[in-house]
Amino acid sequence: MSRLDLSSIPVRTGTDYPDPFAEAVNGRSRQALGDAGGITQFGVNLTELQPGAASSQRHWHTHEDEFVMVVSGELTLITDEGETLMRAGDCAAFPAGRPNGHHLVNRGWGTALFLAVGSRIKEDKATYPDIDLLFDGSTGSYTHRDGTPYPKRDPSAAPAANLPIEEETLEPRVYRADHGEQDGAERGPTERGPTERGPVIPGEAR
Amino acid sequence: MSRLDLSSIPVRTGTDYPDPFAEAVNGRSRQALGDAGGITQFGVNLTELQPGAASSQRHWHTHEDEFVMVVSGELTLITDEGETLMRAGDCAAFPAGRPNGHHLVNRGWGTALFLAVGSRIKEDKATYPDIDLLFDGSTGSYTHRDGTPYPKRDPSAAPAANLPIEEETLEPRVYRADHGEQDGAERGPTERGPTERGPVIPGEAR
Repeated sequence: MSRLDLSSIPVRTGTDYPDPFAEAVNGRSRQALGDAGGITQFGVNLTELQPGAASSQRHWHTHEDEFVMVVSGELTLITDEGETLMRAGDCAAFPAGRPNGHHLVNRGWGTALFLAVGSRIKEDKATYPDIDLLFDGSTGSYTHRDGTPYPKRDPSAAPAANLPIEEETLEPRVYRADHGEQDGAERGPTERGPTERGPVIPGEAR
Repeated sequence: MSRLDLSSIPVRTGTDYPDPFAEAVNGRSRQALGDAGGITQFGVNLTELQPGAASSQRHWHTHEDEFVMVVSGELTLITDEGETLMRAGDCAAFPAGRPNGHHLVNRGWGTALFLAVGSRIKEDKATYPDIDLLFDGSTGSYTHRDGTPYPKRDPSAAPAANLPIEEETLEPRVYRADHGEQDGAERGPTERGPTERGPVIPGEAR
């Protein structure tokens, strides 16, 4: 069937960011909807961010276009231009090669969901303007800015406290027609000043 | 700014389908979000369907992957496998080259919104299994199944009653954080049998 059964699509947590950059995406889980639906020409992920979690380290791509739409909850978009609140239905686009690092952070008290679409271009490179990190898509490896490689994450190693490793499960999510208020969870304030921030996100120095 | 201001993105109505196939998409309006955000590697449209409107004639693509997510309201997905109701958050994928004609039809009483993502491949062809129509992306032209071209729609011609021509405007849409219940409009029943259907959609013969 062309319609996707979201409850049957694996939920992936964890990251291959090298330490100490992995912790920023603690509380992030993703479902690869495009892969599950058999499409290959672009990727589509449905990503859930728990309070405090970031979508990624702030980054921009040399070759890949990206597009996001918030599906439920509230997220803060952070770019070179500053911060802006995004609610369900809000969209943002990140054209390839535009050196404007971006990510989404959940500073609210409830979970948030967003859809992300990205092209898939082997020679893509990602730059992380806040931290000493580069990613080379052609080798699939992370390096320091001077080109020195980071050690690969070892998924068999015991994870440090709160540090995620790649993991797949089918259980945790509950889907309803409107994801906005699920579980009756309290919603955080719509906008919070710098003194009332949620958990500190490593690497989010700006 | 990377975040899109939806109220500044033109809303396009109309179609270049030849008659009598244009009427099916009466009540459809679209915003090209990807273009507005400066991305080029795939297209992203936010499409609103009024009651009775279809997203397109039922079709499949030879070369282009497609992905849709319902943003608000309820839509009926129609494919070779039959019909299935899709609500906000529901997704469907249509891999290139899979000969399974698909479209979304609004059989409810309220408007519905969906996000559609598609790759852009010049040599793409679209097949419309219910009607005598083919589309050739390399020439941008519609033909009969036997290859005879249809006349191009003439946007300067006076439109027949209820037949849309391409039009751009900035006014009609109202955006709110939750599009689900806007205007307090009554919602249609969640599923209706064949005897209680909404307006008849031309070409929706199956």
